[in-house]
Amino acid sequence: MKTSAIFYHAGCPVCIEAEHQVAEALDSARYDVKIVHLGEQKKEIEAAEAAGVKSVPAIVIDGAPFHINFGAPMSVLKG
Amino acid sequence: MKTSAIFYHAGCPVCIEAEHQVAEALDSARYDVKIVHLGEQKKEIEAAEAAGVKSVPAIVIDGAPFHINFGAPMSVLKG
Repeated sequence: MKTSAIFYHAGCPVCIEAEHQVAEALDSARYDVKIVHLGEQKKEIEAAEAAGVKSVPAIVIDGAPFHINFGAPMSVLKG
Repeated sequence: MKTSAIFYHAGCPVCIEAEHQVAEALDSARYDVKIVHLGEQKKEIEAAEAAGVKSVPAIVIDGAPFHINFGAPMSVLKG
């Protein structure tokens, strides 16, 4: 069974670079990579925060949050 | 030819988690992943900083720096 990896972003330039360079670098044979745009899928914000995501871009791998550089805090996405 | 991915860390708990969950998740068929412990390989600090690394853990993929969570600033490693 593949490990879950959820990449959260908000379409910002920092997010897009991280998506292209980090999220797409994961081994798809071992990881089930899901990309979530929190600006467009606001109902996913709760799940992201529950996983410990405090800013985007971030990737939650097997339940553990990893913030990659800094694009925007979660608070901006809730507006 | 594989893309270069250099994971810089300093042995801190945040670093080790990132190494296990992020660096090891990269597709080794497409990426040549190198792990560098800056606390033990201080001569690599200059190259890391030249690539834009400001804190560890960080991974430089194809020359672009991505800081993953926050373990320690580079200044601590120079002591």
